[in-house]
Amino acid sequence: MTENTTRASTFAPVNIAVIKYWGKRDTKLNLPTNASLSVTLSQDDLRTHTTASCSPSFTADSLTLNNADQDISGARTQACLRELRSLRAALESKDSSLPKLSTQPLKIVSENNFPTAAGLASSAAGFAALIRAIADLYQLPSSPTELSRIARQGSGSACRSLMGGYVAWRKGDKADGSDSEAYEVQPASHWPEMRAIILVASAEKKDVSSTAGMQQTVASSALFAHRAEVVVPQRMAAMEEAVKAKDFEAFADLSMKDSNNFHACCLDTQPPIFYMNDTSRAAVRLVEAINASHPEGKKYAAYTFDAGPNAVVYYLEKDADTVAGTFKTLLGDKTGWSGANGEKIKARQGSLEGTEVAGEALKKGISRVILTSVGDGPRKTEEHLC
Amino acid sequence: MTENTTRASTFAPVNIAVIKYWGKRDTKLNLPTNASLSVTLSQDDLRTHTTASCSPSFTADSLTLNNADQDISGARTQACLRELRSLRAALESKDSSLPKLSTQPLKIVSENNFPTAAGLASSAAGFAALIRAIADLYQLPSSPTELSRIARQGSGSACRSLMGGYVAWRKGDKADGSDSEAYEVQPASHWPEMRAIILVASAEKKDVSSTAGMQQTVASSALFAHRAEVVVPQRMAAMEEAVKAKDFEAFADLSMKDSNNFHACCLDTQPPIFYMNDTSRAAVRLVEAINASHPEGKKYAAYTFDAGPNAVVYYLEKDADTVAGTFKTLLGDKTGWSGANGEKIKARQGSLEGTEVAGEALKKGISRVILTSVGDGPRKTEEHLC
Repeated sequence: MTENTTRASTFAPVNIAVIKYWGKRDTKLNLPTNASLSVTLSQDDLRTHTTASCSPSFTADSLTLNNADQDISGARTQACLRELRSLRAALESKDSSLPKLSTQPLKIVSENNFPTAAGLASSAAGFAALIRAIADLYQLPSSPTELSRIARQGSGSACRSLMGGYVAWRKGDKADGSDSEAYEVQPASHWPEMRAIILVASAEKKDVSSTAGMQQTVASSALFAHRAEVVVPQRMAAMEEAVKAKDFEAFADLSMKDSNNFHACCLDTQPPIFYMNDTSRAAVRLVEAINASHPEGKKYAAYTFDAGPNAVVYYLEKDADTVAGTFKTLLGDKTGWSGANGEKIKARQGSLEGTEVAGEALKKGISRVILTSVGDGPRKTEEHLC
Repeated sequence: MTENTTRASTFAPVNIAVIKYWGKRDTKLNLPTNASLSVTLSQDDLRTHTTASCSPSFTADSLTLNNADQDISGARTQACLRELRSLRAALESKDSSLPKLSTQPLKIVSENNFPTAAGLASSAAGFAALIRAIADLYQLPSSPTELSRIARQGSGSACRSLMGGYVAWRKGDKADGSDSEAYEVQPASHWPEMRAIILVASAEKKDVSSTAGMQQTVASSALFAHRAEVVVPQRMAAMEEAVKAKDFEAFADLSMKDSNNFHACCLDTQPPIFYMNDTSRAAVRLVEAINASHPEGKKYAAYTFDAGPNAVVYYLEKDADTVAGTFKTLLGDKTGWSGANGEKIKARQGSLEGTEVAGEALKKGISRVILTSVGDGPRKTEEHLC
């Protein structure tokens, strides 16, 4: 760090939606066609670490991710930087004693602690960390919800990574997007028992980028408008209730239904978009078998799939051996079981009835697992990357 | 054949829908939630051959398929036999000179000329042949449309196999099902250039039977009612127009959209139903690549998938080398290319750009091909099976 350099660093989390964001009603402002709701995952397991610094001696804005230079000329990143600078400039114009950081070039350095190739939605954590670090650098008084309106313009789902626990993203109605923001439904401490196992599918080229895919769906699916206008609003209300009541049964039912509904709209797109593959189908069948083993006919686990073949399976801590233990029996030789989260999971003895075919497909198609849990929002840190 | 035995034999065709039947509004009468439209395929390639006979010396009704005894006590088969006997009894009561066949036990012998394990919708051809053969045995004056109301009760899609060419099945509105019947949109001679290649996927246990699956969809999909009430009625009208105008571009577009829309509703079912697998996805990508090679941006081919992973690809005769030739390049070593249909197809030189992954998946997942074309309705034959 050279003289006159100011800096701030943050960790920001990944989030995995249980009511899915898919479709924009405004592509420039990243305004969604429907609300969404996600679980913020623990930064102990998955996080982006970002340091934002500025100095009059820097020559231009720059961003590196995992030591590789990134293009920041894109409209989305530029919109975020412009909005943050504008907030800083307003502070500086009110208080002339403040250093004129808004006019200085920014140097942003980011690192993900998870494999980028794993196909995990890293842009959410990345933009949330970038926004949070710059907001701290600029000492902005903005709330997470206010910052979420900026993060949304970088990557839609990033707005939900500015808070911990159970986070919703309001669709909003205004054309300028000022009411399309994230809010905390409940903090992680409200329902800290939520766990997740991510089954990372072997690398395969992604079918269609989510940015392109969602607009193809909006333009061509005969079913999507019904999802956005009728199905999701009902499920959002029910899911907020489920989280408040810590009702895992309802949470699981809604999560699985909404994941399938989203992928159904992808399949109904012209040309059809397939994110789930035979490995994903096998994960669905395993979760169904785990649930079928419940003595009271309840649900132990819920699957959800983002725009890729990886399964994220939510469950409660008390059922760790039942849920994660079943996957450990099958996938115990894959990466991801070492460390505190994985070592304490007891592998299930014997396989579940009728899962032989699905089990073989999973063994073949899954390359690693990640064990994690609900977690907090971005954390300020004094560990600086530059 | 013993003395006093009366008999009649028929060949009946398979049909493959391009606007799909999925969902019943009345499970007893097999009344559909929406109309459907299919292409009747040539009996030179795929057919059920059935002989119906009756004799006072028979002790009970019986049915064999490919030399194996079949249970005919099911409500569906019984409904068909009851209705046909009742029509015969009415003739007998009007003309006392007629033999009292309606009171004699029936012996029905059927054979499919295609592998039952191939997962082709054999019940349509099977029930159509059964109905047509008994109607001929009984010398019923009923039209194919009148018989279609009976066949529908055996297996919904069987009603469309009583006619050739391009056949629609009207949803109907009446509770007794009397207006839910098949009608010929156009005969095969109107548009005889229609060809089909069926890519038969390697044996895999079917996900869910279509009978059970469709009612799970009706009961649990949040999207299905929109399909049945809004999407299909529009597409039926457009598809009838496309067939009348011999507009392959519209035919292909509607076929692919409707197949995807149907499978989207399967995926939106709780628990989700997956009929398409990674092999099916590869077939979709190959057809897309074939179409992308059209110099004017038009469509050479259309895929459609029934309740299983097999792809049926429709194309016009003039494009045989472009469409079937592409599959011959990839799948030339599989069963199905010998015989007149296959030998005349010229394999494409070199592969289509960007289809390497999909091509490998097809080579691995497809066990045989069937080359066929649009064809006529059931044919009376003097080749008797008993």
